[in-house]
Amino acid sequence: MKKHLFLFAAALLFACNASAQLRFVDATELNLIGKAQPTPHPYHRIDTVRYKGFTKTENQQVRCSPGLALVFRTNSTRIELRPEYASFVYGGASTPRVASEGFDLYIRKDGEWLYASSLAPSKRGNDLTIVKEMDSSEKECLLYLPNYSELLSLQVGVDENAHIEPMENPFRHKIVIFGSSYTHGVSTSRAGMSYPMQIERSTGLYFCSIACSGNCKLQPYFADYLCDVKDADAMVFDAFSNPDAKMIRERLIPFIARIREALPTTPLIFVQTIYRENGNFNLRYRQQEADKRQAAREMMAQAMKQFDNVYFIDKKNLTGDDHVTSADGIHPSDLGYWRWAKNLEPELLKVFKKHGIR
Amino acid sequence: MKKHLFLFAAALLFACNASAQLRFVDATELNLIGKAQPTPHPYHRIDTVRYKGFTKTENQQVRCSPGLALVFRTNSTRIELRPEYASFVYGGASTPRVASEGFDLYIRKDGEWLYASSLAPSKRGNDLTIVKEMDSSEKECLLYLPNYSELLSLQVGVDENAHIEPMENPFRHKIVIFGSSYTHGVSTSRAGMSYPMQIERSTGLYFCSIACSGNCKLQPYFADYLCDVKDADAMVFDAFSNPDAKMIRERLIPFIARIREALPTTPLIFVQTIYRENGNFNLRYRQQEADKRQAAREMMAQAMKQFDNVYFIDKKNLTGDDHVTSADGIHPSDLGYWRWAKNLEPELLKVFKKHGIR
Repeated sequence: MKKHLFLFAAALLFACNASAQLRFVDATELNLIGKAQPTPHPYHRIDTVRYKGFTKTENQQVRCSPGLALVFRTNSTRIELRPEYASFVYGGASTPRVASEGFDLYIRKDGEWLYASSLAPSKRGNDLTIVKEMDSSEKECLLYLPNYSELLSLQVGVDENAHIEPMENPFRHKIVIFGSSYTHGVSTSRAGMSYPMQIERSTGLYFCSIACSGNCKLQPYFADYLCDVKDADAMVFDAFSNPDAKMIRERLIPFIARIREALPTTPLIFVQTIYRENGNFNLRYRQQEADKRQAAREMMAQAMKQFDNVYFIDKKNLTGDDHVTSADGIHPSDLGYWRWAKNLEPELLKVFKKHGIR
Repeated sequence: MKKHLFLFAAALLFACNASAQLRFVDATELNLIGKAQPTPHPYHRIDTVRYKGFTKTENQQVRCSPGLALVFRTNSTRIELRPEYASFVYGGASTPRVASEGFDLYIRKDGEWLYASSLAPSKRGNDLTIVKEMDSSEKECLLYLPNYSELLSLQVGVDENAHIEPMENPFRHKIVIFGSSYTHGVSTSRAGMSYPMQIERSTGLYFCSIACSGNCKLQPYFADYLCDVKDADAMVFDAFSNPDAKMIRERLIPFIARIREALPTTPLIFVQTIYRENGNFNLRYRQQEADKRQAAREMMAQAMKQFDNVYFIDKKNLTGDDHVTSADGIHPSDLGYWRWAKNLEPELLKVFKKHGIR
């Protein structure tokens, strides 16, 4: 009995001490970057009350937080996270929990974003120590939010005696990217490894992602949303991964026309879809994918005649040709996405440069 | 009512037709490779009834199937899998389900193992179409079993009119590898991307893995197991990832001595542990890992004086030094493991060549 009392007292003391060491601020007091347009809900990417026409799944997807990041300064030696999630949207077999519901922290060192930590809570409702035992120098932090979860709230805990404050957006210009699960970041190990976020850190250019797994199909209501992003310096599209060849032929020109009406000169850069490794032996799949790529080529040739400042990046294979990069026959692993970023970046930069984006 | 009856009849017809198209063989009728020694249970790597001393977790881990693969020939256009699992052992947040409970299929093409497909069942109890719509030419198949699941049984389904038969082991020699979660394949996208399996396919050399996540700590009972693998041509150890510096100092020499008594000349190749990205900002962690690497260096210098045919591969960083390869601060993603395989392979080949392993 005495022993139990002692253990209880010790546990209580430890708990008090642990919580006394940290203070929490709501993430909305920091700077949340990555949204193409503001939304009333802090962690939704698109205001699905204002913008209509999205399917239920699309609504769920654009309420997830891929590409959103908190930027802040702190001298805390430890950073704790207290996330509250809505019900889970996506649990694909190729995506680990660190990417789907976890957080990915970078800290600026010598001008570069250096990986600090990436973790998911051990279970819903638990706090998460994303990093600890650092020195107490002033640090600039870039914290990517989960790729496939809808956050209801987020609090950030720091040492009780440390400060934490919002930081200005460290990235330049504004590039909106719309795409499939590839762009959303399926099968990445963590949110910061989606290819747009890799290119963002590497170039310093600001990417706002409205990617939507399985649902980047040249829909008119996505075009309507994009028409309202008047301050975008460029738009990038991974728009040939989800639609089939027929859909590409039917929808591409009207999709571009719709955007062009509202945004007469914004550079619109379309990127060819990648080779899918399922096609190595599945003959029907291989043909179907080849048909899509061919339709994209033909329609883009037509689009580039019809519209100014429309571009097509059609590199042979952004993820390499050694057939080692696939997680599940469709989606690349980090190895594939890393190559994708490395191969796409110079192609994008060529176009950006033409338009003064540098 | 009529409509329901019709739908039921249609469903029944469809079910009969679907199952009539396939016939299943038990995987034990094919050739299962990857075990250092035979076990009574087809999918356990170590006979934990015969070998004593393992902890409960170690027992669970060595009953999982990382590094085990079925090899067979078939001319089927479709391959279906019907796995039965024991209760789940490991669901780490950095490992996707495709790797922990899924299957990873390669098919030989022009003498090379080419990725065909990798998938996990949508849920336990469901069959899984790993590949379909192939041509009906004769194919040599290499099917990796799950990294972090214990299989109770496995059936392989092929077209009713196709043949399927065991294939001889396509790999040469026999190299036993013992290691941590790194060697086990944590955070890989799929079973075939663990670095030993990558090296196996690339070199054609046969690797038998007894890796045990978190539990490669130079334990005497693992040494006892290895002593019985009399026909091993070499042994490779990722033995400095799990133990702390003190444990390395205490255990390394007795561990080697124990193996050397039974296997006087077998090459024993130890590999330095990798830099862990958590150490970028966590100062205590960085120091602790540096201490381990230093202890490994000192003890390996001593071991190489004391024993013949003991080697130490101490490359600076097998996963590169650009800090982009970590899934969770500790374990590499596929990008890291791919580099690990590429960087380790030539170092291993140098030693192997000295001992006629080529």
